[in-house]
Amino acid sequence: MKKSLALKILENHLLKGEIKTGNEVCIKIDQTLTQDSTGTMAYLQLEAMDIEDVKTEKSIAYIDHNILQAGFENADDHEFIKSAANKYGITFSKAGCGICHQVQLEQFGKPGKTLLGSDSHTPTGGALAQIAIGAGGLDVAVAMARGFYFIKVPKIYRINLKNELKDSVNAKDLILYILGKLSVKGGTGFIMEYTGEGVKSLSVTDRATICNMGAELGATTSIFPSDENTLKYLKSQNREKDYVMLSADDDAIYDESMEIDLRDIKPAVAKPHFPDQYEIVENLPKIKLDQVAIGSCTNSSYKDMMKVASILDGKKVHPDISLVISPGSATILEKLSENGALSKMIKAGARILESGCGPCIGMGQAPKSKGVSLRSFNRNFKGRSGTMDAEIYLASPETCAVSAIKGYIADPSDFSYEKNFDENIIFNHTKAYFIEREEDLSKRYKKTVKGPNIKPFPKAKPISNIDKKIIYKAGDGITTDDICPSNAKLLPFRSNIEYLSNFAFSTKISDFKNRSIENDGGVIVAGENYGQGSSREHAALIPLYLGVKAVLAKSFARIHRSNLINNAILPLEFVDFNDYEKLGEFDNIKISNVEDSIESGNFIIENIDKNISINLKGVFSDREKEILREGGYLNYAKNLELE
Amino acid sequence: MKKSLALKILENHLLKGEIKTGNEVCIKIDQTLTQDSTGTMAYLQLEAMDIEDVKTEKSIAYIDHNILQAGFENADDHEFIKSAANKYGITFSKAGCGICHQVQLEQFGKPGKTLLGSDSHTPTGGALAQIAIGAGGLDVAVAMARGFYFIKVPKIYRINLKNELKDSVNAKDLILYILGKLSVKGGTGFIMEYTGEGVKSLSVTDRATICNMGAELGATTSIFPSDENTLKYLKSQNREKDYVMLSADDDAIYDESMEIDLRDIKPAVAKPHFPDQYEIVENLPKIKLDQVAIGSCTNSSYKDMMKVASILDGKKVHPDISLVISPGSATILEKLSENGALSKMIKAGARILESGCGPCIGMGQAPKSKGVSLRSFNRNFKGRSGTMDAEIYLASPETCAVSAIKGYIADPSDFSYEKNFDENIIFNHTKAYFIEREEDLSKRYKKTVKGPNIKPFPKAKPISNIDKKIIYKAGDGITTDDICPSNAKLLPFRSNIEYLSNFAFSTKISDFKNRSIENDGGVIVAGENYGQGSSREHAALIPLYLGVKAVLAKSFARIHRSNLINNAILPLEFVDFNDYEKLGEFDNIKISNVEDSIESGNFIIENIDKNISINLKGVFSDREKEILREGGYLNYAKNLELE
Repeated sequence: MKKSLALKILENHLLKGEIKTGNEVCIKIDQTLTQDSTGTMAYLQLEAMDIEDVKTEKSIAYIDHNILQAGFENADDHEFIKSAANKYGITFSKAGCGICHQVQLEQFGKPGKTLLGSDSHTPTGGALAQIAIGAGGLDVAVAMARGFYFIKVPKIYRINLKNELKDSVNAKDLILYILGKLSVKGGTGFIMEYTGEGVKSLSVTDRATICNMGAELGATTSIFPSDENTLKYLKSQNREKDYVMLSADDDAIYDESMEIDLRDIKPAVAKPHFPDQYEIVENLPKIKLDQVAIGSCTNSSYKDMMKVASILDGKKVHPDISLVISPGSATILEKLSENGALSKMIKAGARILESGCGPCIGMGQAPKSKGVSLRSFNRNFKGRSGTMDAEIYLASPETCAVSAIKGYIADPSDFSYEKNFDENIIFNHTKAYFIEREEDLSKRYKKTVKGPNIKPFPKAKPISNIDKKIIYKAGDGITTDDICPSNAKLLPFRSNIEYLSNFAFSTKISDFKNRSIENDGGVIVAGENYGQGSSREHAALIPLYLGVKAVLAKSFARIHRSNLINNAILPLEFVDFNDYEKLGEFDNIKISNVEDSIESGNFIIENIDKNISINLKGVFSDREKEILREGGYLNYAKNLELE
Repeated sequence: MKKSLALKILENHLLKGEIKTGNEVCIKIDQTLTQDSTGTMAYLQLEAMDIEDVKTEKSIAYIDHNILQAGFENADDHEFIKSAANKYGITFSKAGCGICHQVQLEQFGKPGKTLLGSDSHTPTGGALAQIAIGAGGLDVAVAMARGFYFIKVPKIYRINLKNELKDSVNAKDLILYILGKLSVKGGTGFIMEYTGEGVKSLSVTDRATICNMGAELGATTSIFPSDENTLKYLKSQNREKDYVMLSADDDAIYDESMEIDLRDIKPAVAKPHFPDQYEIVENLPKIKLDQVAIGSCTNSSYKDMMKVASILDGKKVHPDISLVISPGSATILEKLSENGALSKMIKAGARILESGCGPCIGMGQAPKSKGVSLRSFNRNFKGRSGTMDAEIYLASPETCAVSAIKGYIADPSDFSYEKNFDENIIFNHTKAYFIEREEDLSKRYKKTVKGPNIKPFPKAKPISNIDKKIIYKAGDGITTDDICPSNAKLLPFRSNIEYLSNFAFSTKISDFKNRSIENDGGVIVAGENYGQGSSREHAALIPLYLGVKAVLAKSFARIHRSNLINNAILPLEFVDFNDYEKLGEFDNIKISNVEDSIESGNFIIENIDKNISINLKGVFSDREKEILREGGYLNYAKNLELE
């Protein structure tokens, strides 16, 4: 059979099972990455697995999220991660080095390799023809400890590209267009594979922007072929040796496909509060802005920054606008500094922030009350900016920069600026931000360093019959930002589940914790795409801590579903969506025969108050069944033999 | 009589009274500055005075403190200040422009002018032969509204400098030496005036470092003559036209004097937790560091940054250290970028933060628990870093940079690096960060913009007899950081006194607010130098809000004493320091005949529980008496006629 590139790479890494859509298989993981907001938990879990050395080719612990350090908590987290990195043979990337996905792309990503990262935007690596997947911290911990990852073989969605993007149109506009077409759940269960002539016109960092926001489609990952542009990019990073040419077979078979003429793509935005709220800029009314923010793992490449500098050259940021720019890596900042681009930004009145995730993860730069902010980022969920009533629009760096000058959302097509840069200049990366893996086991830390901010994580229990209240009935599209809010005030507590549990669902209701305490835990009911957004395992650990036994939803986002199972919380789906209406908030429900139902996949939920029964399904792989029975992935994975 | 430079400038600005030590006089204020953490309050107070236009030559509102913006509060503050600046004809400096004192020096400071700023480090301007004084927000509001400021004519302390500083010795080492000699209260009641041959070897930014930390001496201000170096500096800032030569008369008379041979000064630190805990580096044991921070209004000049870059050139920051660098202004960052210095810092692994106050004001970069941090800043009060149990050392940028490479506090004299830079290159300042004063009154905002974070401030009441409990008995050296803690979590609430009051004295005791509520207000007893540190008026407004009627202390820091009087809280001093022991925490005291006592200056405190009486003094100027009687400076100043 003619194969897609994605399936070829999966096949090359197969450890167990058969590569067939829907099958759960076990694949070898070559590389892992963690960042600091999910990393503390991942390393606590790794520590619980009691290993001596990681089993991957390269594992890196990045510090890029919590770099404001408003209290001792962040620095304690960083110190813990640094000590765990040393103890287990992981490379440590200090704060200031840059955003994990950007640095990974520049310095470590290799065509044909697998990468598992405890960050939902790990698929950025697909730009280098990697299978790069975002997962919960526990999955990444297991990948480090055992070198493998279990995955249900996704369907492959071909996106065939024709022609070239117009001047002033960024790869961001393309992925916003795709999001508009497919919606934030349109990629669920798929790998998005990009093919066609149009691919040749996209540089590796353009591709990175597209793969990055594939996460917003709900896709497992996205991937581009490894071609001449890949070689050019790797040469520019002094890594020509890492190049291999890779592509799908001619006439490969795909499960779905879409063709896009790149000439049709126009500068666009995602309107508040979801990345699929697509609209082209020329159709917008004059939307006055208070803030513009450029950066994030989506759009902080050298090329993006050079375009921004070119737009700002000789201009002045509008007096009513605060323009913040965070270059994606220290290397990029250095280059911008050397070639005069940084100077142009400063002369225009831009604020230069440290290389890191910054405002994209809500670490700082919260807009004013009811403020309107345009951002080159990947998510615009309500409240994620740190300001609950702010309106966040997403756009390309070009649209952002032009709008920062104009004062309102403006089309860069109408603006004259230098558009051509040699992206493939040579980047000489300093090694000063890295603490390399210590090869000599005798020189490693004997134990990790745990300051007072590092708390033990809650342990799952084997699944059993359920007799609980529905303590919260949510609508569609609940994000992990809703379940575990992510902002500058809470991010420092990512290793303190008890404290975070006070804020569970606080973007939606104020008393979730109280409800769970008063009812001794409970069950959550939700609509479609429950748990979309970030990979944070905390969105499962907090419910676990609060005694939540099951989530009954119309559908689940992939990573969050795994996180629930890994923590022995049942994710069950409505067979008939109409049944959603039959469950009311605070109804008492019963799920009997849970053991048998896990085996069969069919669950019967009795609504005691309404005296009715409805059917839900929970189709689990043998491994998932075992995890639910054993009470979580940690115990399961520790002793697992692959035969 | 032969006159000091300081008295000459005061005399040139005299509006009322006679320039004679100890006399209260009224002087004309030419320039004012505010920053955003004290500025919201200053502009609320200005608004309460109901004026149309400021009376100064130049007033500037800087945004440099709260630039992390972890929630909507900061951006709301900035928006309010921007609107007030527009309404009253004040120049607005946007976030990113740089630290107020550095930018003021570069672009606005003028020899011979007076400057009043709502920041205790306003004396930095003395480097340009200004009388530059830090004051509470209300004093600065009055200066903007009425153009004047009342001051008790200080004594003048001459510091006569001989010879030149050695290589590797920074002006910072000199001021740390002076602090070691005189202590944090040694400058109280003085202007420090620098004279002698040695002055010629100090550039304007060297002088700025010295004047800046004159604040830590408790001095009213510090001043250098305006000479050839001043001319060179102003030329480099394209402001030759602002130059006038100014110096003391030959053989001027001084109240105190000290002579220092600059050749004797060695690289030094201030040990935790006060800036006067002086020790030379060569006497220190090997103190391992976790963090090094370079920047702040004390040491973030172009020359300082160039030296740091030169030290880091080709080197690598120690793996265990997080080195953060914040250049003092956007212009400096731009120059460092253009000339390759920034590149050297990045290659060495430094983290580049936005130009602003940053970690110096506790906005981010809190060290880890029990962490040890070396900083080129001006204050190392316990907890100010954001980490209560951290140990903070102060040093020069050179000592900081060398130590960042070594991993422990190290002497730059033993390190080889390029030491000579032309500080007087031409700086072309972008105007993009400024919103200039709107001259056309009809185009100005009709009212200010107040988001939900902007709360009304508490109003003082006329003084009356006191019959209260001593709700807190403090020791020596209580800082305004103790009274109103300043860290990243609380700084966003500087316009919300009610919220801040929950944290009053929280570095010392946990229940101050409760004590005040339970006892319907009360009285505070304290040791020496009560209220040292920052100019923040909040340290008076919080006690006012909580019903504190008087503070009985051995001595007061100048700015805080004024802030208490301005808010009609009695600052009384022990006549006999032994009487401090006669007042116990929670004793009930009575002060009768307050009206008469204000007039006479003699107060009798009855300790009801111990059945004894003791004498305290409160020597007030006629104006201060009037303020206490009228219930605060706001009402008083609004209607004041100077005759």
